[in-house]
Amino acid sequence: MMTTSEVTQKGQLAKQAAQKLAITSTRVKNDALTRMADALDKNAKAIITANSIDLEAGEKKGLSKALLDRLSLDGKRINGMIEGLNTVKALSDPIGEVLSTTKRPNGLRIKKIRVPLGVIGIIYEARPNVTVDSAALCLKSGNACILRGGSDAIQSNIAIAKTISEAADQAGLPKNSIQLIEDTNRETAEELMKAREYVDILIPRGGRGLIQTVVQKSQVPTIETGEGNCHAYVEKSADLNKAIEIIINAKCQRPSVCNAIETVLIDHEVVAKLALPLFKRLKEAGVEIRGDSEIKKIDDSIKLATEEDWKTEFLSLTLAVKVVAGVDEAIAHINKYGTHHSETILTKDKKAAAKFQAEIDSAAVYVNASTRFTDGFEFGFGAEIGISTQKLHARGPMGLSELTSYKYLIEGNGQIRD
Amino acid sequence: MMTTSEVTQKGQLAKQAAQKLAITSTRVKNDALTRMADALDKNAKAIITANSIDLEAGEKKGLSKALLDRLSLDGKRINGMIEGLNTVKALSDPIGEVLSTTKRPNGLRIKKIRVPLGVIGIIYEARPNVTVDSAALCLKSGNACILRGGSDAIQSNIAIAKTISEAADQAGLPKNSIQLIEDTNRETAEELMKAREYVDILIPRGGRGLIQTVVQKSQVPTIETGEGNCHAYVEKSADLNKAIEIIINAKCQRPSVCNAIETVLIDHEVVAKLALPLFKRLKEAGVEIRGDSEIKKIDDSIKLATEEDWKTEFLSLTLAVKVVAGVDEAIAHINKYGTHHSETILTKDKKAAAKFQAEIDSAAVYVNASTRFTDGFEFGFGAEIGISTQKLHARGPMGLSELTSYKYLIEGNGQIRD
Repeated sequence: MMTTSEVTQKGQLAKQAAQKLAITSTRVKNDALTRMADALDKNAKAIITANSIDLEAGEKKGLSKALLDRLSLDGKRINGMIEGLNTVKALSDPIGEVLSTTKRPNGLRIKKIRVPLGVIGIIYEARPNVTVDSAALCLKSGNACILRGGSDAIQSNIAIAKTISEAADQAGLPKNSIQLIEDTNRETAEELMKAREYVDILIPRGGRGLIQTVVQKSQVPTIETGEGNCHAYVEKSADLNKAIEIIINAKCQRPSVCNAIETVLIDHEVVAKLALPLFKRLKEAGVEIRGDSEIKKIDDSIKLATEEDWKTEFLSLTLAVKVVAGVDEAIAHINKYGTHHSETILTKDKKAAAKFQAEIDSAAVYVNASTRFTDGFEFGFGAEIGISTQKLHARGPMGLSELTSYKYLIEGNGQIRD
Repeated sequence: MMTTSEVTQKGQLAKQAAQKLAITSTRVKNDALTRMADALDKNAKAIITANSIDLEAGEKKGLSKALLDRLSLDGKRINGMIEGLNTVKALSDPIGEVLSTTKRPNGLRIKKIRVPLGVIGIIYEARPNVTVDSAALCLKSGNACILRGGSDAIQSNIAIAKTISEAADQAGLPKNSIQLIEDTNRETAEELMKAREYVDILIPRGGRGLIQTVVQKSQVPTIETGEGNCHAYVEKSADLNKAIEIIINAKCQRPSVCNAIETVLIDHEVVAKLALPLFKRLKEAGVEIRGDSEIKKIDDSIKLATEEDWKTEFLSLTLAVKVVAGVDEAIAHINKYGTHHSETILTKDKKAAAKFQAEIDSAAVYVNASTRFTDGFEFGFGAEIGISTQKLHARGPMGLSELTSYKYLIEGNGQIRD
C-alpha cells in the first residue's frame, strides 16, 4: 500500500483550508491573531522548555554561538512574537480590495479584486520566531501556510505551531490553515519544492545557501529574498560629512543584515579629501577595509580588494572601497556586481542623482540616505515577510499586499462574442 | 578553448541592451515600431520565400494540416503582423508610471515607479507571428527579448527577426534589444531555462506540452499561460434561452482556444427542461457530448464521461456535461478539475452569483456572459502576450503592464537609521 507523505498530506489539507480562508472575514482572522497571542503568552513556559531541548542538541552538535543565539528563546523574545501578532492584527486586510473597475463597450463590467495567493510554503532555518511571524502574515492575507523550519529548531517549532494553530482553530479559522512540516529531513524540503499541486508560492527565508537551493530546485514559483550586496556611491558634489555619517550607519549600525552596505564607491575628485577621515571613522568602528589600488596609494596599510570582494555580501564589519571616475562607472560597477537590493548615491547634483536612480537596477535606490531603510516597517508597510531581489511579482520589502494575487469578476447580461 | 554558446552570448548582449532600453524614450520606441512595420511590408516577399522553405520541410516531415496552417504566411498574415505593431505603438508607455508616493515621518520620500522586467525570454512553437508580436510587446514595455521559436518555423523566424531588428537599430533602439536563438536544438531551449544570469522571466507560448516542460524545467522565473479547462454552470434560476446561447458561443465560436468551455454543469432542478433543447443545438453545431449517468438517463445516445474527461481541455468540439446538486457542488467541481482560467455562472440569483465569484479560484469569473471574453483585447488592454493561469506576478490576460516590475526611489537629506 502506498503511504501518503507528510508533505502531500499537509499539502492537500492546506489547499482545502485555503479555499475557505480566502473567504474568511477580517473579524475571524483578527480574532485568531488575538487568540494566538494569548496562547503564546499562556504557553511561554512550555515553549521555552521545548526550546531548551533544541539548544542542548545544538550545543552537542557544535552549532556556532551566533546560531545558538538565533535559536534561543526567552520571555522577551516570546513577547516580541506577541507584539508581532498584534502589529499584524492592526494592519488593514488587503483581501477584497477593488484594484480597478472598467465598463466595456459591450456592457461587460470588469472588476479586478485582490485575492490571496492560496497556499504559501515557507522554508526557513533556525529562527523559531519566523514560525509565528510567517503564520501571522499569511493568515492576515488570507493564505494557508505550510511551514518548513530547520531541524535545529524543530522542538521549538512544534511547540509554537501547536500553540498558534490550536488558538486559530478556536477562533473558527479553517482547520489546517497553519501547518508545520515536522519531518526535517532534506527530502521534505525538496518535496515541498516540487509540490506544484498544493503550493502556490514558496518563500525561502534564510541565508544565501538556502535561498539559492530553493531558487534552483523549486518547481513551485518562488521569491528570491534577502541577498544584499549593497553600495554607497560618493559623488563628487557630496556633502562629505553627511556622506561619512551615512556610510558609517549603512555599514556599522547592523552589519549582519541584507540592507547594510558592502562596498563604497568614491569619485576620484573627492577621494583625497574623503578617504582619511572616512577610514579613521571606519577603523574606529572596527571595520576592515579592502581597497583597490587607488585606495592603497592613499593608505598602504589597507588590504588590496580582490575581484571576489566586489561580489561578496560580507554581512560583517568588512567593507570594500573603490575609486571610480564618475557616476557612469559607479552605475556600471553596481549593476555588474550588486544583487539588485539597495544602493545609495550621496550627492548635491540633481542630475547625477536622477541618472543614478534611473539607471541602477535595484529594488531601492536612495539619494542622500542610508540603505538601512529598505525594510517593510521603515517603508510603512507595518510588517514584512522578506525583501525580494527579483523583479517578478514583488520587488523590495514584501508586506501583506505582496502576499496577494488578484482575479477578475465580470458581470454581463447575456454577452456572447462575435 | 571554451566557446561561448549562442544562448550565453545573446543573453549577455540582451542584458546590456536591457539596461539601455529601460531608459529609452517612448518616442524612440514608437519610432522603432513604425520602422519595423515598414520593414515587414518592404520585405514581405523575402519573408514569404523563407516561409515556403519551412513549409516544404514541414510537408516532407509530415506535419499535420493544422500545424502547416499555423506555420504558413501570406500577404494577409504579414499585414496582420503590421497591424499588430501599429496597435502596440498606439498603446501608452507603461514605463515610468508613478504607482505610489509616500512621505515617511523621518522625511524620506518614497516613490514607487514602474520599470521593465529586463530581459524576457519567449519560448514558442511554429507560429511565426509570435516573433513579431512578442518583440513588439517587449520593446514597448522596455524589455529586451530573446526569442526561441520552434525548428519548424526557423527560416521564417530568421527572416522576420532580421527584418525587425535591423529596423529597430535604425530607429536608434539599443542594439540587440530583439534577438532570435537560431539554433533550435532542444539544448538551446533548456539552456535558456537555466539562464538566470541573463533572463529575468521566461514566458512559454504554445500548447500544454511546451508549457509544462518550461514550468517544470525552468530555473528562470516563468509564467504559466494558456491552459484553459473552462466551465459554464447553469444555476437553477438561469434564463435558459440565454444560457443556451452563451454555452453555444463559449463552446463553438472558436473551440480551439483556451477560453472556450470544456464542461457544462447543470443544476438538477433545470436539467429536465434544459437538456434536450441544449443538446439539439450542440449536436447541430457538431459537438460531441460526453455526459455523466444523469445525462445518459435523459439521452442514452450520449457517451458516458470518464474521470479523465472532467480534466481535459479538449480544444475541439467535444463537451463534457454533468448534473450537479447546486452551486456548492459546481464550485467544488470547478476548483477540483479546472485550470483556474475562466468560468461562468448563468443565473438570476444574485446570491448564487456572488458565492460563485467569491469561491471560484480562477483568473476570470463571469456572471451571465461567455468565457470567450478572457482576452487582452476584450479586457481593453489593447494587446496580450498570453493568459496567465498562475497567481504569482500576473493573472489572466497579460498586457503591457504585466510585462513590468517596479522599483522604489527614495530621497533623503542625510537620514540614517537609529
